[in-house]
Amino acid sequence: MAELLVVRASGYAYDSQRKYPQFELSNQSLKQLLGEGVGGVILYGGSVNELKERTNILRSWSKYPILLCADVEEGVGQRFEGGSWLPPPMSLGLRYSQKPKESLVLAEEYGKCIGNQARRCGLNWVLAPVCDVNSNPLNPVINMRAWGSEPEAVAALTSAFHKGLVGEGVLSCAKHFPGHGETRVDSHMDLPIIENDISRLNDLELIPFQALINHGVNSVMTAHILFKNIDSSYPATFSKKFLLNLLRKKMGFDGIIVTDALVMKAITKRYGCAEAAVMAFEAGADLILMPEDPMIAINAIVDSLISGRISINRLETSLYRRRREISKLQKTLSKLICRQSSFQSKEFEDTNHLDLADKMIDMSIEIKHYSYIDSSHNQINLVRVDSLSSTPILTISSPALIIPKRLGCKNIIYHPDGVNPWQAKPQEPLAIERLGRGRILLQFFVRGNPFIGNQEDLSLWIAAVKQLQKNHLLSGLVVYGSFYFWKELLEILDSSVPAAYTSGQMPKAQEKLLQSFLQTKKEIVNTNNTFIDFTN
Amino acid sequence: MAELLVVRASGYAYDSQRKYPQFELSNQSLKQLLGEGVGGVILYGGSVNELKERTNILRSWSKYPILLCADVEEGVGQRFEGGSWLPPPMSLGLRYSQKPKESLVLAEEYGKCIGNQARRCGLNWVLAPVCDVNSNPLNPVINMRAWGSEPEAVAALTSAFHKGLVGEGVLSCAKHFPGHGETRVDSHMDLPIIENDISRLNDLELIPFQALINHGVNSVMTAHILFKNIDSSYPATFSKKFLLNLLRKKMGFDGIIVTDALVMKAITKRYGCAEAAVMAFEAGADLILMPEDPMIAINAIVDSLISGRISINRLETSLYRRRREISKLQKTLSKLICRQSSFQSKEFEDTNHLDLADKMIDMSIEIKHYSYIDSSHNQINLVRVDSLSSTPILTISSPALIIPKRLGCKNIIYHPDGVNPWQAKPQEPLAIERLGRGRILLQFFVRGNPFIGNQEDLSLWIAAVKQLQKNHLLSGLVVYGSFYFWKELLEILDSSVPAAYTSGQMPKAQEKLLQSFLQTKKEIVNTNNTFIDFTN
Repeated sequence: MAELLVVRASGYAYDSQRKYPQFELSNQSLKQLLGEGVGGVILYGGSVNELKERTNILRSWSKYPILLCADVEEGVGQRFEGGSWLPPPMSLGLRYSQKPKESLVLAEEYGKCIGNQARRCGLNWVLAPVCDVNSNPLNPVINMRAWGSEPEAVAALTSAFHKGLVGEGVLSCAKHFPGHGETRVDSHMDLPIIENDISRLNDLELIPFQALINHGVNSVMTAHILFKNIDSSYPATFSKKFLLNLLRKKMGFDGIIVTDALVMKAITKRYGCAEAAVMAFEAGADLILMPEDPMIAINAIVDSLISGRISINRLETSLYRRRREISKLQKTLSKLICRQSSFQSKEFEDTNHLDLADKMIDMSIEIKHYSYIDSSHNQINLVRVDSLSSTPILTISSPALIIPKRLGCKNIIYHPDGVNPWQAKPQEPLAIERLGRGRILLQFFVRGNPFIGNQEDLSLWIAAVKQLQKNHLLSGLVVYGSFYFWKELLEILDSSVPAAYTSGQMPKAQEKLLQSFLQTKKEIVNTNNTFIDFTN
Repeated sequence: MAELLVVRASGYAYDSQRKYPQFELSNQSLKQLLGEGVGGVILYGGSVNELKERTNILRSWSKYPILLCADVEEGVGQRFEGGSWLPPPMSLGLRYSQKPKESLVLAEEYGKCIGNQARRCGLNWVLAPVCDVNSNPLNPVINMRAWGSEPEAVAALTSAFHKGLVGEGVLSCAKHFPGHGETRVDSHMDLPIIENDISRLNDLELIPFQALINHGVNSVMTAHILFKNIDSSYPATFSKKFLLNLLRKKMGFDGIIVTDALVMKAITKRYGCAEAAVMAFEAGADLILMPEDPMIAINAIVDSLISGRISINRLETSLYRRRREISKLQKTLSKLICRQSSFQSKEFEDTNHLDLADKMIDMSIEIKHYSYIDSSHNQINLVRVDSLSSTPILTISSPALIIPKRLGCKNIIYHPDGVNPWQAKPQEPLAIERLGRGRILLQFFVRGNPFIGNQEDLSLWIAAVKQLQKNHLLSGLVVYGSFYFWKELLEILDSSVPAAYTSGQMPKAQEKLLQSFLQTKKEIVNTNNTFIDFTN
């Protein structure tokens, strides 16, 4: 029974290093659960070297082959330091209509890069691609993670990605079935309710999933969404109508069905841990991801088998599917290792990976007008981030801070948990005197972020841009991340205002964008000789 | 000649993972320099597991035994994730006069903890203890890093620390000779000039250094300070008067003299890279730490030997000292490994280390009055940090944020690069409406920080505390770090104001302090069930 579970662990070796000890099991618990046959582990945090060691240790704690997975949709470097960190899939989705061939080649490279690095870290299951069609620009949780807003583009790009990914010897996962692209509610926070009927799903959401199933995707992850006109009682994760009738029978999927994390508030606000695990299993899921308490989930499943609520036959089918996908993988791997006997490079990211990241960043940069920072005047570099989280987007040595600083700007970092910059004037909401004197280079880091996507009302910022523009205080405007927000800004910007966009938020995207956007002597705009942190 | 150099590297394996690529050599350069015989590497960043692998690789690049050092004055966890992170030495300095015996026992344990963990990470040289007597409470760079403000306390505590440290099989380093405790200028930023004469040094600064020399300290690090009444031409690092006449001859030190980092601005603002290396060597240094450009430094030293400016004999003596200390170490290690054949524990921090950290945090907590957060009213948790740096003091899951949040507080994080909270009213400098409505729990993270120690004028905060107190808006006040700032606040606080202090800034200190300071139901004030960062 334990085999049905995928539990969460930190990528770090020691308990004291866990970033979220409330969700990441201790080594003692992991050892015990793996000893009892738990089927998989999902990993978060650490560096690629750390992870390599960690996955070896986790394997040694289990008598059977286990699934080791991670949410590395945008590159292993999105979660594990040292891996490649790529611009979001939407970058290719936006390009697809003009340059379909090139976009498909890049999507396949994208998959290869992730598959290759994941495998070299000891992972064997990548929780990607996102197959959701981002039909709602205000979607707080999918957004730039999607491969587009048109079903055909998403189907084509995720198929290419999938080919690259599985060719590197890892299992794949199409998510979030039957489609999360329409939601305005983040299922991490609450249960989204969608009114679409089945014909709309057929015409839109299901297209990429069907394509991936046809390509042999190894697993499908369920969405915690209530489609009230299709199954008014159960969210998809718990719905036989979705999992058995639609996904298995109608769409012909016989791989692993895995739930999205059961600790998400869409579930925990409504269902207990035991009930949630049993309901998902009963509805047709083969793997239960991150139940709130693994032992309670195991016991509840045992009870449901003893009581006859779920048949032993049903259990055996799920166990069989998991084992079958693992043995498929082992076949791919043995071929792969014959083909490339030595894939160990000195640097973790090989040349192809570095080239791909560079190319995608370059492609995603749009410059409307170049900016000139006049260092003889007071200048402010106002950087707005979604949250002061621990993501490595913005640190003291980020190009978005150090390049303008070297040009004489004063850095001001705004985040929603900071001192309030707003005043009660709808036309002029920004209290400029709280920032200091000078013209402002305004840099936005904006993305749909799980948990915090809707925390701040961006319309205040739209008004603030108008205000700065009107008062001739805007020396430049940059958006990192959301293409939707960039489009909204373009509508209100005067044609002469210097402005630039990239879909990437990582340091390399910041550096590349600012190096071309800020017109000044090249020797100033580089990242050498910046900041010392040693303390002797 | 290369043997005279100690160069800087990241603790991470791959070039792309370097946090400060401008200071941390690439693997290609490191391999080349170690191949040419560079004598040592100073490491920053990464986790303890990462570091263990890294030190093995660096060793493999050299034909000879090399020195591998780190600035882990306050625990290996101060620089490398997964190690123990202890409250600063000053905590024991403050306790010494009341409880000398207990303080000495803890200082020895402190040294043991660092020595043991450093060795297990593959380091063989710990750049501690700080032997400076912090005679100036406004010292921006030494401050809480010192073992006290009285020479006898510092001498006794650093001697105990040293015993614990070297017993674990690593080399030690007394710093920063002849004493950095009096300065108001941070030598990372500029050259401090001190007027003290030699009799004052004899009576105060030199006492701990002499004690450590008598205990066989392996190395002494020089300070970049100009003592204008002793050597008006040269800062101590370049001064024969200090290094040869005072340290070697008068004080009888025959171990390794190592410079403080030559990339610090005290040096680079005045001297070129080549000249700085030669001057330090000429003045008596045996090892040159972090020259701006290692190849330039090596060539300059070669030239000085060819030209006869420095004698070959002088070179040989320096090389001999380095090798002698390494072979001493190897003797200690061989004994140690006989004694404790298996020191591998499952968790990196063993019980002694965890107990020490707990004990020191508990000891350092002072509670003047308990606070009661009434969650039925609006409450603000205003957290002030020295800098939005990449240190792990404050992240989204820090107890200083999540505990008050769970009690209903709105978090506001203030840092000097944020939106300005100040208004032009000397008696009421804090513009309270920019924070929101409600009473304020004010938490200060304040320490003398290299590079940023004096960035913000704390007198504004003193005035702000008065203002909040007068307007009955202060629901509690906490200081993490500077004892001097805490004492200053105690002088202005009304006797009824809830207030608490700990010298530690690490998450464990935050949690322990808030758990006893905030009087409320115990089940609320714990750190479980806080925040989810996964994105499925």
